[in-house]
Amino acid sequence: MTVRARLDEIADIGRDPVRGGYSRHLLDDADLALRAWFHRSAAELGLDVERDGNGNLWAWWGAQGPDAVATGSHLDSVPGGGAYDGPLGVASAFEAVAQLQASGWTPARPIAVVAFSEEEGSRFGLPCLGTRLMVGAVPAVTVRALADGDGRTIDDVWSAAGWDPRGIGPDPDRVARLGAFVELHVEQGRDLEDRGAPLGTASAIIPHGRWRLTIDGEGNHAGTTPIADRRDPVVALAAVVTAARATAVAAGPSARATVGRLAVTPNGTNVIASRVEAWLDIRAATDDAVRAQLAATIARAEEGVVAEGCTLSVAEESFSPRVDFDEALTARIGDVLGGVPTIPTGAGHDAGIVAPYVPTAMIFVRNPTGVSHAAGEAARDEDGEAGAAGLAAVLRDLAGRS
Amino acid sequence: MTVRARLDEIADIGRDPVRGGYSRHLLDDADLALRAWFHRSAAELGLDVERDGNGNLWAWWGAQGPDAVATGSHLDSVPGGGAYDGPLGVASAFEAVAQLQASGWTPARPIAVVAFSEEEGSRFGLPCLGTRLMVGAVPAVTVRALADGDGRTIDDVWSAAGWDPRGIGPDPDRVARLGAFVELHVEQGRDLEDRGAPLGTASAIIPHGRWRLTIDGEGNHAGTTPIADRRDPVVALAAVVTAARATAVAAGPSARATVGRLAVTPNGTNVIASRVEAWLDIRAATDDAVRAQLAATIARAEEGVVAEGCTLSVAEESFSPRVDFDEALTARIGDVLGGVPTIPTGAGHDAGIVAPYVPTAMIFVRNPTGVSHAAGEAARDEDGEAGAAGLAAVLRDLAGRS
Repeated sequence: MTVRARLDEIADIGRDPVRGGYSRHLLDDADLALRAWFHRSAAELGLDVERDGNGNLWAWWGAQGPDAVATGSHLDSVPGGGAYDGPLGVASAFEAVAQLQASGWTPARPIAVVAFSEEEGSRFGLPCLGTRLMVGAVPAVTVRALADGDGRTIDDVWSAAGWDPRGIGPDPDRVARLGAFVELHVEQGRDLEDRGAPLGTASAIIPHGRWRLTIDGEGNHAGTTPIADRRDPVVALAAVVTAARATAVAAGPSARATVGRLAVTPNGTNVIASRVEAWLDIRAATDDAVRAQLAATIARAEEGVVAEGCTLSVAEESFSPRVDFDEALTARIGDVLGGVPTIPTGAGHDAGIVAPYVPTAMIFVRNPTGVSHAAGEAARDEDGEAGAAGLAAVLRDLAGRS
Repeated sequence: MTVRARLDEIADIGRDPVRGGYSRHLLDDADLALRAWFHRSAAELGLDVERDGNGNLWAWWGAQGPDAVATGSHLDSVPGGGAYDGPLGVASAFEAVAQLQASGWTPARPIAVVAFSEEEGSRFGLPCLGTRLMVGAVPAVTVRALADGDGRTIDDVWSAAGWDPRGIGPDPDRVARLGAFVELHVEQGRDLEDRGAPLGTASAIIPHGRWRLTIDGEGNHAGTTPIADRRDPVVALAAVVTAARATAVAAGPSARATVGRLAVTPNGTNVIASRVEAWLDIRAATDDAVRAQLAATIARAEEGVVAEGCTLSVAEESFSPRVDFDEALTARIGDVLGGVPTIPTGAGHDAGIVAPYVPTAMIFVRNPTGVSHAAGEAARDEDGEAGAAGLAAVLRDLAGRS
């Protein structure tokens, strides 16, 4: 087969007719269909599939460790996301195994193809949910109580799927069985395109924090309330958004600040809102730079918020410190791939969660549009096949000797 | 009974556990329960109830016209609205009829207690839907195609209720049977409270327009997209909100501008949005002043929108010209009530839609908080009873002689 053919098998799963692109969220109908596709793909290659307690799927070529070489990514998407972010890594992993099997080669170390649960955090708000749970980076009790937009908890959806939520939590034995993890992923910027390189490796994931900002004002009638008497959280929101942008610009070209999600209460056309929740995403070169940018944003925003008679509270939803990938593994992969650029990334990945525990590296596939987390995300077919062929060579190198 | 006791009968219908207050929208479970209460209240007074083709309910004391005196209001609410906006007028109408009946008096002109459909426009976006249809101020074909947030049309929900949507439309015979309409309503500001007056009458409804502003940008990844490459509609929104506020302030103390409702696409925590829709509500002393304020807001906002590389389009959802109530009727009511303040209002009302066709007046009941369209809306029990007693005296005066 080809990577293209494998992606075509799932091309109609989870299309979003409103936003465009795909909306595939943990344990929704699309996710269940993608999991069934994972099982079929593994079965065609004679791989045994196990689902761990955190919902991550593992297709094993050989025994389940020790010193296994794992490769894969995730199958979920952001709302209205692209076709490649996640699935490209899983499809390329199956394709690489298929090519190695076809060549008659057999691994000396076990190989696992993996699909991690809820990498985007789009349903329950916690990105890299499956890997964070596996390595114990977040308490199971916290995660089990997380609720989606309809008020359903992780426990609820686990039970509805026929899964036992008591299995959710740290899985140190599994982590200990992994000798290396390689995640192939579509690039989420234009760096490789600008360099004319189809593939690259990752040096680091720059740090990343996500905060929920709650702006409280006073709900009232849009027609009868004089402007001077208003405490309008939408007006205060404008100050927050403006502050986030101005602070990011002041912090220099590597800094990012985004408000991409809002919730307005009660969200009526003829009422002054009583509350606005805004999610603020900040990324910068170092952990300290991210925290400094948040503090500067809040300080700058407070002036406008207070002037409107509103209050602002800040809750940290996640903080992902800077992750440097395994230098030796990355260099070895670079050699196998014949010398490719090594670039940092502003996007979070399961590889970043696993890296402190397992020697980990990433392979990026060129994205000609540079668009990510939207339908315009792209990868050329020939680059996708080059990625799978490269991944096969990497697995042959890593798993060829124990 | 009392007005208080009548409102207590519906106090548990449509409570909103998330927003607080009440969410009662056309033909939802709450609205159906309120309609059942209307039928019961009418039956207890021996009034015949008819539902007209537009879903408005009429409880008749006497024949159905001609030269009828109608009084009432609406039963629906904004999302998270108060207990009085609408239901106070209907409950007071029933209570006034009850007091008149108990006194042994009989009307020379027919009296109708009325509850109009979807005054707030919270489900289908068109305020005063029932009266606009009745007087022919909006084409039936347009209204029947309106869809709610779940994509269900008026036709759909009419049919689901067992109503015939072909009955929707102008009802000139019914309008011709009305000799007067008096709407009692809780005040939506603090004017009567400041004047120390429990009751007042309305001079006019100031004009009111509602526009949907669509800001288009480019969806992309929150981590990997440099600030300089962004076309972020949330940043452009901040410019729009700031412009709306600044323009209203510049227009003077009677001007209002509110953005109370937003829709963000795709609304993800780690994605730059591709589109924001914002609903802008503007009110001012004259029709021309409203349109001038809109134009100034858009001109002021465009600078920020264009600077962000976004586009802004403006669609008018409704425009309600200034309405002056019937001066002779208002003066007569003021005399019956023993001299009360006459005040303008910034809120739209069914009375404003009916006024060009039928001699119409309004009675306001004092609101000690001045809060409206939110749970904090209030009316003292003694003011509510004074309103019903006053309305009874007004009906006795108006309907006592044909």
